[in-house]
Amino acid sequence: MNYDQIIQETIKTNNSKIVLAVMDGLGDIRHPEFSGKTPLEYAKTPNIDKLAAQSCAGRMYPILPGITPGSGPAHLALFGYDPMQVTIGRGVLEAVGIGFELRPGDIAARCNFATMDQNNLIIDRRAGRIATEESEKLCEELRSIREIDGVEIIIMPGKGHRFVTIFRSKEKEIGDQINDTDPLEEGKPLLPAKGKNPPSEFLASVINQFVEKGLHILRDKYPANSFLIRGISSKPDIPSLNQKYQLEAAAIATYPMYRGIASLLGMTLLPAPDSIEGLFQTYLEFRQKYDFFFIHIKGTDQAGEDGDFESKVQCIEKVDQALPVLLENKPDVLAITADHSSPCAMRSHSWHPVPLLLHSAFCGIDDVQHFDEYSCIHGSLGLFESKYLMGILLANAKRLDKFGA
Amino acid sequence: MNYDQIIQETIKTNNSKIVLAVMDGLGDIRHPEFSGKTPLEYAKTPNIDKLAAQSCAGRMYPILPGITPGSGPAHLALFGYDPMQVTIGRGVLEAVGIGFELRPGDIAARCNFATMDQNNLIIDRRAGRIATEESEKLCEELRSIREIDGVEIIIMPGKGHRFVTIFRSKEKEIGDQINDTDPLEEGKPLLPAKGKNPPSEFLASVINQFVEKGLHILRDKYPANSFLIRGISSKPDIPSLNQKYQLEAAAIATYPMYRGIASLLGMTLLPAPDSIEGLFQTYLEFRQKYDFFFIHIKGTDQAGEDGDFESKVQCIEKVDQALPVLLENKPDVLAITADHSSPCAMRSHSWHPVPLLLHSAFCGIDDVQHFDEYSCIHGSLGLFESKYLMGILLANAKRLDKFGA
Repeated sequence: MNYDQIIQETIKTNNSKIVLAVMDGLGDIRHPEFSGKTPLEYAKTPNIDKLAAQSCAGRMYPILPGITPGSGPAHLALFGYDPMQVTIGRGVLEAVGIGFELRPGDIAARCNFATMDQNNLIIDRRAGRIATEESEKLCEELRSIREIDGVEIIIMPGKGHRFVTIFRSKEKEIGDQINDTDPLEEGKPLLPAKGKNPPSEFLASVINQFVEKGLHILRDKYPANSFLIRGISSKPDIPSLNQKYQLEAAAIATYPMYRGIASLLGMTLLPAPDSIEGLFQTYLEFRQKYDFFFIHIKGTDQAGEDGDFESKVQCIEKVDQALPVLLENKPDVLAITADHSSPCAMRSHSWHPVPLLLHSAFCGIDDVQHFDEYSCIHGSLGLFESKYLMGILLANAKRLDKFGA
Repeated sequence: MNYDQIIQETIKTNNSKIVLAVMDGLGDIRHPEFSGKTPLEYAKTPNIDKLAAQSCAGRMYPILPGITPGSGPAHLALFGYDPMQVTIGRGVLEAVGIGFELRPGDIAARCNFATMDQNNLIIDRRAGRIATEESEKLCEELRSIREIDGVEIIIMPGKGHRFVTIFRSKEKEIGDQINDTDPLEEGKPLLPAKGKNPPSEFLASVINQFVEKGLHILRDKYPANSFLIRGISSKPDIPSLNQKYQLEAAAIATYPMYRGIASLLGMTLLPAPDSIEGLFQTYLEFRQKYDFFFIHIKGTDQAGEDGDFESKVQCIEKVDQALPVLLENKPDVLAITADHSSPCAMRSHSWHPVPLLLHSAFCGIDDVQHFDEYSCIHGSLGLFESKYLMGILLANAKRLDKFGA
């Protein structure tokens, strides 16, 4: 028996409401470059502090010690999916990220417009970073390729030079064990697609024809006279949050990627205004209709990746100021945490554990009075892998029965 | 996907330097017999304290809670090898420990001279602990047995009554699934060697002939008129640190066993003077040539096993005094820790977690101001299994890419 099986065996439903507020990339480190305090330590957070005094705290490894996660694995872990077992391909992430609803069997690839010289060598893998509007026009032209060998080709523009292609087969099985056509280095030709098994070989031949037709269409579109195909992947076969936990789950997230992941896990996408207060208002509005609310706050990660300490502090303070809205009709279980750390001093995701604040009637109030990375070291929840968070939330919501007699 | 595979997928190289300083058996416990403080708490360590104030701290389980490791598993874990999956047989440890270079296919056994009575019953399993010089002479006599059935017999004297036998087959495959000939209790005869599969059966027959010929040679050598064969094992097939982590790794260790383990893992053995300052000087001297330096300090373990609190304190203070040498050209990542605890009050290895100090530009400075077992409880690294240490060191060295998108 494993953890998932224990949850399956003990799960039950009730009327409790659970809110998981994820401040993306919130975790940080003390660093001399930035005041020697973390943004959470530095920020004025009277409302969060007040909550902390009635809550318990802890820290989580997004994956395991030393591992820096991308947003995909980090969020999967927060929702209780083992990030080392369940993976979402890059093409699929990109597709759901631009709001495309994948069907079972669909295979998605992320694509870049690129520049090719007269010898068919790729000389710019991003086509001089052409503008989104330009890219949209080119996608429209590529859309004249509607179907190859019974496989429907769906083209969706993304940001800048990026677009997504979805392959949807009507009859024959298609597979995603196919290499990228991206040569990775400039000065080299596109790689032909090759499949590792018969369904993948079939799609590879479709992809090669797609490339040939596409290059013909783009032949006069310098600098965007070529394109690379990468991250070919199928919609993963993942149980929904409802199947896993018998939860009616909803997501309040503005960014497409997080809406995409939520949607892959069967969450309903709720309206997500730009302000943090607005996100919390959405929870109030839909409180009766769902059991579980994933609220995603992006600003902290962006600030961390930009090395913008002040902006990270401001985003935290905005969350603090908006918190009373969320508490107006307090959920039974409220967790405030991060998917991963994005320290300002590193300007990137990192491996450092994330802080966690947990409030419920039965959380057990510990001595942590301030919600920050270093105070949380002393929290009663200790340090554990993010993939166990859902179990803790469900337990606090009294949605898990006793295991064994 | 498992932890090792994530590391494999995300590893990259750069010019960073990593130093792992292992104070063998450093971990200790507070005990009324010895001042109520641990040697680390008791020792004056101004240099380590200064470093601690700019570092983060934590603790590690060498294996898992309650498990007391031998030096082999404890070191394997520190180097990122799962000590429950990867094992080095005792014969092999003994062989590499006396500096013998095992070749693939070699099988090694550790042997004891013993005393046998006129009925061929073992009456002293250590032959009255005969001196090393005596033992060396007897080994020389045993060396007249050079080969049996095409298997070369190589005999290497060890300390006291101990020696090592290496079996090297030229043609036929030999196996190591063979019992010890040691009856374990005195008053019993030698056990015949038996193999569990055909290659082991073949070597067992060679071993039985070796014993017969050996006993004949030793028949007048009372008290060393017999010998026991134990820990029959093959050179393990372990990936090197270079294969695992793309690290050029070097070991600075004086004791043969640690040199042996390092060598099995593909580390280059650097000169290792007797003084701790000398060990650190070697790092300075070879800093440009390697990425990773394992520095092994033995004194703490010896003192712990002897129950010699003062000597353990002195060894720690010597490390502290020598530390400025190491910091003269500071590595990008420096960890000071132990392979296992050897509490003075126990006079043996123990299961207690070991303290860990970690310094790097991005370690995140925590509140731990003094490096000792009890202060480290409050460190930001928490308490984790030693096998994850390498991942943390590599992350701090920025040698690990992001996992997943």
